[in-house]
Amino acid sequence: MPTLRELGEAEAIRLLTRDRAERAGVIVGPGDDAAVLRFDPGEDLVATTDAQVEGRHFLPGWMTPGERGARLAAANLSDLAAMAARPRWALLSIGARPDHEMGALLDFQHGLARALGQDGALVVGGNLAAVEGGEWWSLTLLGAVERGHAWTRSGARAGDLLAVTGSPGRSAAGLALARRGGGPNAKAARDEAWRPLLEAWLRPRARVAFALALAPARAVRAAIDVSDGFAGDLARLCEASGVGCDLRAGSLPEDPLLARAADALGLGAEALRFGPSDDYELLLAVDPAGREACERVARETGTPIAFAGQLTGERGKLTLEGAGGARKPLDPRGFDHFGGRR
Amino acid sequence: MPTLRELGEAEAIRLLTRDRAERAGVIVGPGDDAAVLRFDPGEDLVATTDAQVEGRHFLPGWMTPGERGARLAAANLSDLAAMAARPRWALLSIGARPDHEMGALLDFQHGLARALGQDGALVVGGNLAAVEGGEWWSLTLLGAVERGHAWTRSGARAGDLLAVTGSPGRSAAGLALARRGGGPNAKAARDEAWRPLLEAWLRPRARVAFALALAPARAVRAAIDVSDGFAGDLARLCEASGVGCDLRAGSLPEDPLLARAADALGLGAEALRFGPSDDYELLLAVDPAGREACERVARETGTPIAFAGQLTGERGKLTLEGAGGARKPLDPRGFDHFGGRR
Repeated sequence: MPTLRELGEAEAIRLLTRDRAERAGVIVGPGDDAAVLRFDPGEDLVATTDAQVEGRHFLPGWMTPGERGARLAAANLSDLAAMAARPRWALLSIGARPDHEMGALLDFQHGLARALGQDGALVVGGNLAAVEGGEWWSLTLLGAVERGHAWTRSGARAGDLLAVTGSPGRSAAGLALARRGGGPNAKAARDEAWRPLLEAWLRPRARVAFALALAPARAVRAAIDVSDGFAGDLARLCEASGVGCDLRAGSLPEDPLLARAADALGLGAEALRFGPSDDYELLLAVDPAGREACERVARETGTPIAFAGQLTGERGKLTLEGAGGARKPLDPRGFDHFGGRR
Repeated sequence: MPTLRELGEAEAIRLLTRDRAERAGVIVGPGDDAAVLRFDPGEDLVATTDAQVEGRHFLPGWMTPGERGARLAAANLSDLAAMAARPRWALLSIGARPDHEMGALLDFQHGLARALGQDGALVVGGNLAAVEGGEWWSLTLLGAVERGHAWTRSGARAGDLLAVTGSPGRSAAGLALARRGGGPNAKAARDEAWRPLLEAWLRPRARVAFALALAPARAVRAAIDVSDGFAGDLARLCEASGVGCDLRAGSLPEDPLLARAADALGLGAEALRFGPSDDYELLLAVDPAGREACERVARETGTPIAFAGQLTGERGKLTLEGAGGARKPLDPRGFDHFGGRR
C-alpha cells in the first residue's frame, strides 16, 4: 500500500470513509462539507470526544493498528454508556505523518469502525492533517438518549447502592504485566494464565449493551465510566453528586487472578483495584428499589456486576471497610496525563 | 499562569470549559462523561471536524493563540455555512505539551469561543491529551439545518449560476506577504497597504450569517466553502454534481489590491485568485431564478458577491473566458496537505 504522501489527502480520505454511510439517519455522509444526520423525535443528543496519542496511550509493538482503533472506539463508547446513550455517529480526526502507510491507517480505521459498529455507530465524517512528529487520533462520538433521561454523574443520593460492572484494575494489571514482560513476544508477559488481564488492557469492551438494557428500568440515579481508575472516577461521581461512598472489601468484585497479578507484580491488591486503570467499566449509583432490576439486566446481558457499597451524606469522603469491619479512607488518586497525581 | 504539568488535567479542563454552557439546548454541559444536547424538532443535525497542527497551519510569531483559536473556529463554521446550517455546539480536543502555559491555552480557548459565539455556537465538551512533540487542536462543530434543506455539493445543474462571496485568494496573498516579509515585525509585511490581505489570512470570518439569511430563499442548489482554493473547491463541487463550469474573467470579484499583491509577489494574478487559499468564502450554484434573492440577501448582510460564471453539462471541465472571449482550461489544483498537487 502507498504512503499518505504518495496517495494524497483526497484519495486517502475517500479510502477511509467509503461505503460506510448507508445507514438510517445519515442524510449526507462523508465527502461533503459536513455530515447531515437525522434525529429521532423524543431523543436528546449526547456528544463526547476522546483522543489517542502516539507514545502515550499504547506500548509500541503491543497493539495492532486495528486494536488501537477499537480501543479509541471503546473509550468513546464507554462515555456514552455512562450516559445511557445509544451510539450513532462518529467523526474521526487524524494527525498522521506523510510517510504513514495507507494500509496501517485503514487497519486502524477498520478496527475502529468494527468496534463502533458492534454498538450500532458509524463513522460519518473526518479530517486528515499532516504532522511532523507524534501522530494522534481524535474521535467525536454522537449518540441518542431518551429525552430527559441521560444518566449523569450528579444524581446520586445518600443511601443509593454503588454497583460496579466487571473488575476494575484488570486493564492496569495487563499493562503492568506487558511492561514487566519486556516486549510483546516475551514469554513472561504472554503467559496464558495472564491472558484475561492482557485482554482487558488490549481489547476492552464498553458496557453499552448493558447500559441500554438497564436504562428503561429507571434504577440508575448517577453513573460514570472507569476511564482513569475505580477510586478516581468514584471520587468524581461523588463530588458531582455531593455524596460520599462506603465500600465494603467483601463486596468488591471477586477476582483471584487480579490478586495473583498484584502479588506477581509486587503491587498491593488495592493499588491495582482502585488505582489508575482504563477499564471502561461502569460505576452506578442505584436506587435500592432498583437493585433487582439491575441484577436481572446484568444476567440477561451477561454482565458481571457487584454491589460494592453504599453512598453516604459525607460529601467527598471515600472509605473502604475491611473484613473485620474497620473502615479506612480510600485515596481517590486517578491518573493525571500531565504528570501529577491529584 | 502555571503550566499544564503544574495544574493537572482536571483543573485545566475545568478552566477551559467553565461557565460557558448556560445556553438553550445544553442539558448537560462540560464536566460529565458526555454533553447532552436537545434538538429542535424539524431540524437535521450537521456535523464537521477540522484540526490545526503546530508547524503546519500557522507561521510562528504571526498569530496570537486567540487568533489561532478564532481561525480554527472559522474553518469549522465555514463548513456549516456551506451546508446552510446554524452552528450550535462544539467539542474541542487538544494535544498539548505538559509545559504549555495555561494562560496561552486559555487565550486560544477564548479566541475560539468568541468566534464560535459570534455565530451562535458554544463549546460543550472536550478532551485534553498530553503530547511530547507537535501540538494540535481538533474541533468538532455541530449545527442544525431545516430538515431536508441542507445545501450539499451535489445539487448543481447545468445552467445554474456560479456565485462567489468575497474575494478568494486574499488569504493566500496575506500568507505569501507574511512569508516574504521575514517576520511579524518586518516593515515590508506590516505595510498598511497590505493590511486587508493580511487580515483575510489572520482573521478570516466564515459566511454563516449570509448562508443562514439566504437559505430560506431556496435559491441555492449546491454549495462548498473555499478552504483549499477557488479552483480546487470549485472542481469538487462540479465533480460531486456531475457538471462543469465556465468562469468569465470579467465577472470575477474585482480586487485591485489582490492584483497589486500578485505583482509585488511576482505571482500571476490567476495563480493567486484560483490557487491554494483558505479564504472561507462560499461558492454557490444558484438557480438563475434566485439570482435577485441572492443579491438582495448579500446587500442586507453586507456580503460582497459576484456571479462569476455558469455551470455546464461538461462534467469536470473548468474553463476561464478571457476579456477577448477566448476560453482556456482552468487547472483545479488545490493544496494537498500530504505534499502532492492534485
